[in-house]
Amino acid sequence: MRATVMYGAGDVRIENVPDSQIKEPTDAIVRVTRACICGSDLWPYHLRRPEDGAQRMGHEAIGIVEEVGSEVGTLKKGDPVIMPFAFSDGTCVFCHEHLQTACLHGGFFGNGGMEGAQAEALRIPQADGTLFVLPARGDDALMPSLLTLSDVMGTGHHAASVARVGPGKAAAIIGDGAVGLCGIIAAKRLGAEQIILMGRHSDRIALGRTFGATDIVSEREDEAIARVRDLTGGLGAHAVLECVGTDQAMNTAVGIARAGGAIGRVGVPHYEAVPAAQPLFYRNITVGGGPAPVRAYIEELLPDVLEGRIEPGRVFDRTVDLEGVPEGYRAMDSRESIKVMVQP
Amino acid sequence: MRATVMYGAGDVRIENVPDSQIKEPTDAIVRVTRACICGSDLWPYHLRRPEDGAQRMGHEAIGIVEEVGSEVGTLKKGDPVIMPFAFSDGTCVFCHEHLQTACLHGGFFGNGGMEGAQAEALRIPQADGTLFVLPARGDDALMPSLLTLSDVMGTGHHAASVARVGPGKAAAIIGDGAVGLCGIIAAKRLGAEQIILMGRHSDRIALGRTFGATDIVSEREDEAIARVRDLTGGLGAHAVLECVGTDQAMNTAVGIARAGGAIGRVGVPHYEAVPAAQPLFYRNITVGGGPAPVRAYIEELLPDVLEGRIEPGRVFDRTVDLEGVPEGYRAMDSRESIKVMVQP
Repeated sequence: MRATVMYGAGDVRIENVPDSQIKEPTDAIVRVTRACICGSDLWPYHLRRPEDGAQRMGHEAIGIVEEVGSEVGTLKKGDPVIMPFAFSDGTCVFCHEHLQTACLHGGFFGNGGMEGAQAEALRIPQADGTLFVLPARGDDALMPSLLTLSDVMGTGHHAASVARVGPGKAAAIIGDGAVGLCGIIAAKRLGAEQIILMGRHSDRIALGRTFGATDIVSEREDEAIARVRDLTGGLGAHAVLECVGTDQAMNTAVGIARAGGAIGRVGVPHYEAVPAAQPLFYRNITVGGGPAPVRAYIEELLPDVLEGRIEPGRVFDRTVDLEGVPEGYRAMDSRESIKVMVQP
Repeated sequence: MRATVMYGAGDVRIENVPDSQIKEPTDAIVRVTRACICGSDLWPYHLRRPEDGAQRMGHEAIGIVEEVGSEVGTLKKGDPVIMPFAFSDGTCVFCHEHLQTACLHGGFFGNGGMEGAQAEALRIPQADGTLFVLPARGDDALMPSLLTLSDVMGTGHHAASVARVGPGKAAAIIGDGAVGLCGIIAAKRLGAEQIILMGRHSDRIALGRTFGATDIVSEREDEAIARVRDLTGGLGAHAVLECVGTDQAMNTAVGIARAGGAIGRVGVPHYEAVPAAQPLFYRNITVGGGPAPVRAYIEELLPDVLEGRIEPGRVFDRTVDLEGVPEGYRAMDSRESIKVMVQP
């Protein structure tokens, strides 16, 4: 079968690999019908060293169950499923607490030697706990939005939840990538009254407005902080969704958060320490977040997708086949594309 | 009148100062009947430079209203009051949100040129919003516990609240000072099933046990982390109360927090950045806290004090008069005393 393999920074190849196989009785094989490229894939696309070895890529998918192991009980061949970016057993203490990304027997697709979803198929460990069976194969038009439930929409929702967005609140979203854009949807869905998008790309800003952004801030650093404070009566935003993952983005987050507010971090952090420990403290600002337990959020978000109340699939502005994946990385990296869908 | 003035590290003097006077119509003058020395007073006792100027000290008190300004409406001469460590107008948006330590017209006693409570009397700005009138002058035996509602008990409660202590949870308290000990009371009061005190002073540990600590960890750093993990089934504590304020304490906090857990910081941070940004992220741990809005907590905690269900006043193990304040600083700094009460 064909699959995406990254050999180092900028070196993404589509290759023939052995067909995915059941290894554990709790495994399933899923044939991928839709996958995508994630903003987080761009970090190794910049930083991965050849000595780190080859890595199969992709951690977001919708597909059809092709085969199940002998101990898989809730799935059968032919089931249409959403594959969250993390696998989880569904039975451990963390899964019961709806934090599947801390599962005691879990892990992440397209990472640490695991197979990836930018491929014709992949092996799913802990299939019963991991896969979410879709109620029906559904309308083709819904597929992009359903696909976002495997990561990007659930991640935006996580940021908004951790940042305690609620009715009447002012939310600020740092980052106009696909996660930030889904964060706008999530903030609106949770009742935010004011939704400030911080970004600089006109196509993304336009989409952000249709998703519900009420204000756009395109300044940088101190000017951006001053602008958000102006927009919030001098007080700052109750909820800050940090969807970038840099030190600078966190400094901005602290600067724009209102006293007593909360920052939800979902950008994979490329910094060692959370800056501004003292301002955070003196203003009683809470910092939380991490890998989103998207498996837990599917049930909450799915009805809104199925009934068309939210359309996170609009973040996809380009579709490629498997052979087009390297070009997809290039297009996302150069900001020509917001998010690329892969149809193997 | 007599008051405590700090001139620099280690240089605490009791001096004659001008009698406190009403300056704004919203002021009151409180005659101090009980004050105390705070663990946070030991930071300037170590670090204050003579060029920072003289500072009146003390921010915790119970007293009697002696005089009120023309615009003070809820207080009268003779009222027994608790003076929280921060003053606040009681009317701004943050006061309405119960975050009086972010009051738009607030500030901190014994700090930034404000008068201090280790004195015969002091001026209280924003008196209506700041002072809490006690229902009765009360039993002398209750005074130490009532005094703790001005800071240390409210601060322990803040740590526990921010760390989301609740029924059945495992809480770990870093620091066996008076705040940490009050954190034990708060954790027990909020229903924690397991309460792990991390400390090394036998007198404090003994008191911690009577307050409700179920386990004691006296190891340091990695050994301490391993021990807390052992005590919590390998998972870590749901709630971590960080009552020290050093980088090392925060590293320990991250190491012992369970995935999905929360750290409540109340130790004044003497570090620039919150360490371990990546472990915090990958384990979805929340970090919050800051100056406790003790004014908001008095109503919640007072009945438990008045009815004897909690006895935070037991953290006082020494009482001095005003002239004994410098000796009180010395005794707390050398860990001879947990917390020193001042009876002017």
